Amino acid sequence: MKTAVYPGTFDPVTLGHIDVIKRASKMFDKIVIGITTHSDKKALFSLEERKSLVEKEVKDLKNVSVETFSGLLVDFVKQKNTKIILRGLRELSDFEFEFQQAVVNRKLDSDIDTVFIMTDARYFYVSSSMVKEIALLGGNIEKFVSKGVQTALKRKLAK
Amino acid sequence: MKTAVYPGTFDPVTLGHIDVIKRASKMFDKIVIGITTHSDKKALFSLEERKSLVEKEVKDLKNVSVETFSGLLVDFVKQKNTKIILRGLRELSDFEFEFQQAVVNRKLDSDIDTVFIMTDARYFYVSSSMVKEIALLGGNIEKFVSKGVQTALKRKLAK
Amino acid sequence: MKTAVYPGTFDPVTLGHIDVIKRASKMFDKIVIGITTHSDKKALFSLEERKSLVEKEVKDLKNVSVETFSGLLVDFVKQKNTKIILRGLRELSDFEFEFQQAVVNRKLDSDIDTVFIMTDARYFYVSSSMVKEIALLGGNIEKFVSKGVQTALKRKLAK
Amino acid sequence: MKTAVYPGTFDPVTLGHIDVIKRASKMFDKIVIGITTHSDKKALFSLEERKSLVEKEVKDLKNVSVETFSGLLVDFVKQKNTKIILRGLRELSDFEFEFQQAVVNRKLDSDIDTVFIMTDARYFYVSSSMVKEIALLGGNIEKFVSKGVQTALKRKLAK
Amino acid sequence: MKTAVYPGTFDPVTLGHIDVIKRASKMFDKIVIGITTHSDKKALFSLEERKSLVEKEVKDLKNVSVETFSGLLVDFVKQKNTKIILRGLRELSDFEFEFQQAVVNRKLDSDIDTVFIMTDARYFYVSSSMVKEIALLGGNIEKFVSKGVQTALKRKLAK
Amino acid sequence: MKTAVYPGTFDPVTLGHIDVIKRASKMFDKIVIGITTHSDKKALFSLEERKSLVEKEVKDLKNVSVETFSGLLVDFVKQKNTKIILRGLRELSDFEFEFQQAVVNRKLDSDIDTVFIMTDARYFYVSSSMVKEIALLGGNIEKFVSKGVQTALKRKLAK
Repeated sequence: MKTAVYPGTFDPVTLGHIDVIKRASKMFDKIVIGITTHSDKKALFSLEERKSLVEKEVKDLKNVSVETFSGLLVDFVKQKNTKIILRGLRELSDFEFEFQQAVVNRKLDSDIDTVFIMTDARYFYVSSSMVKEIALLGGNIEKFVSKGVQTALKRKLAK
Repeated sequence: MKTAVYPGTFDPVTLGHIDVIKRASKMFDKIVIGITTHSDKKALFSLEERKSLVEKEVKDLKNVSVETFSGLLVDFVKQKNTKIILRGLRELSDFEFEFQQAVVNRKLDSDIDTVFIMTDARYFYVSSSMVKEIALLGGNIEKFVSKGVQTALKRKLAK
Repeated sequence: MKTAVYPGTFDPVTLGHIDVIKRASKMFDKIVIGITTHSDKKALFSLEERKSLVEKEVKDLKNVSVETFSGLLVDFVKQKNTKIILRGLRELSDFEFEFQQAVVNRKLDSDIDTVFIMTDARYFYVSSSMVKEIALLGGNIEKFVSKGVQTALKRKLAK
Repeated sequence: MKTAVYPGTFDPVTLGHIDVIKRASKMFDKIVIGITTHSDKKALFSLEERKSLVEKEVKDLKNVSVETFSGLLVDFVKQKNTKIILRGLRELSDFEFEFQQAVVNRKLDSDIDTVFIMTDARYFYVSSSMVKEIALLGGNIEKFVSKGVQTALKRKLAK
Repeated sequence: MKTAVYPGTFDPVTLGHIDVIKRASKMFDKIVIGITTHSDKKALFSLEERKSLVEKEVKDLKNVSVETFSGLLVDFVKQKNTKIILRGLRELSDFEFEFQQAVVNRKLDSDIDTVFIMTDARYFYVSSSMVKEIALLGGNIEKFVSKGVQTALKRKLAK
Repeated sequence: MKTAVYPGTFDPVTLGHIDVIKRASKMFDKIVIGITTHSDKKALFSLEERKSLVEKEVKDLKNVSVETFSGLLVDFVKQKNTKIILRGLRELSDFEFEFQQAVVNRKLDSDIDTVFIMTDARYFYVSSSMVKEIALLGGNIEKFVSKGVQTALKRKLAK
């Protein structure tokens, strides 16, 4: 059974993330979404809120589960008894940072493989931080995030 | 059963290609190496020679087969009853061209997914054309290609 | 009256080119499409064929004309009594080459300005050479070029 | 009448900005410089100071006006009854971020066009943040900003 | 006598830095390592700690000295009676930022030359900030920094 | 005594090359310009013509000599009893190819160091092939090559 771990901050989850998860769920037997506690201080949503928002989006995908982790990604991947990290690419320039991370992760554990797949072209250039900035300025984010996330963002920013 | 098609010219196959194939053979149930006839005129080795060199390298990998194809890659992928294209990345700058190809292939068939994995760091920056150039100038290529390919290259360039 | 010169090989004109021309025709008073004779030997279509294909596509745009030129682009631009070169960008990686050309053109004439605009996202990664390659391999090019160009390509490649 | 909006933080305006404005003022009938309030907290100069510094630089350009805006850039552009955003490029690497912004703005309003023009080569690699850093370390910034801005920076950093 | 100044934050010094210093010490008559006070607030180690850690690593290299400087790098270079800045490259993407800095430094003093050399491939993608992040998450950093720096990091992060 | 080998095709030598040679001649005790026979077939000027054009440009630099070589660059470097390869950078995008070559050369001989220096900003984006293309189209190349090379190019292209 091949499991891939899809790590990220998901602050909040975008339609681009969902697209990557759906595509990957057909390629691998199991997908574990790993939400990192690492950047908690800077996050808009709490770890629990982020987890809950992702869970709502993937509840119909039977081979996808959502977990949180602290510590190194390579350690979390080993705990899940796999060696595969999944990363989505939203645009060409994403790759520079991603390649660097993949090299470092393989330095930490030489068996680790990072698998990159592309989001649908509709979601190129869509990122969580861009969505938050547009929402903050009162822009329309319905092309970028689900109804559930739109509501959550509105509520959060109203505070 | 998940099959991935690994397309290329393989003129000739390098240790970087082999590394990608070995890593992918653990991720997918079946790997079909697809050697394209497309650039035949410019190739140093004939299609049959290239196929034979690849076959020798992968003969111990039970879930890997080698085929040749003419026509569009997306059509070959469909013939193999899959939607997954596998590409190896030897370096950051590879990605620009690869991303472009992946976008075009998805335009031709929206269900196609291209999966990118990184070669081992030892094979970063190793390409078939670089190997041919070094061999032509009398350099040592033993870090880049197998014994079998070294012999084949020497014989070919001696003509 | 502001005139912009849109230079290129147009071998053949794509829907991406047409999109750039339409957008620019609303920004400038006059657009002169300049088809260069420079790469004639390598072109699939003759200069006259390329000109005729472009003319069909832009015949409803009143402020757009089509010409051919040999010699330096900056000299052609001066002949048209303007200082503005228009270039379309289909993707991030286009820009590297385009920036280089723009710098060189300004070295040749310091008053020259190159204006870059983006094609619609549907045409990102669509290029004339990609279209020819797909057509040669029997692929479907209807998302990339007009009906007229599809017919012309089929006829040309049948020879 | 073609109007282009030139948005930015202008903290403070550089000779590169001025060069872009002068070039654009010959290409379009009207240029509206839009200074965003968005990054106010991080800015060295207040919104009013930034506006006043820009106004001094462009007071001889009859078709150029200076305004401030909060909210989304695409909304400000629509208020000005235009669809054209103007951006200057100081170097190749600028383009990555700019392309991304242009794609997102077109996602927010599909009629929006972003027009890129290059600064003079003398101003390649000149940015507001670089100017502030050099000024802070006591370096000579007379090649990068006007006399007026030099004085304003000295006064500001003396505090 | 040719002297090269190797500037940086060295927070903390990595095996990649040491590799660059060793290579450069064979190319130039004298290497002055210049630790900048500029980013003191954000640094994990104090200026004195950083200096002390670097000194331990280079104590056997007779033509290498370690100094600290405030103010502009080009001024420090002139104080050392040289015109050569040395920079190490750990990866392709480093170069973008480095090229920009080199252009700006030459604008500040046209005689200044920046010399770039590559670290050994083992240290590609190794940076001080990556080392600190991995250490913070409890990862193994022995491939990236010396024993002395490992101990210093452990002590610092334990606080 | 530190010697650096500056390899290239020099077809023909540009003012950018000369600028790199002058800067390097102050950094190293000896510069050996190595003109490769490798791309002879595609070159506009013969190996002897290229050598003669370079020699005229550097005749006043006492520590610079001009040689030609066939075979691998790393072997030529060893023959010259050095381990230093010098490369000039005319622009950001040069670096991608150069970095790749430097990695491959170090794979062939792990002691080899490639040293990169930047040309003066006036020569950014100036390349031999660009100069030939402009000359062919009748453009003015006096900002890019010396008087001697201008004359040689005119004579060559008149044939």
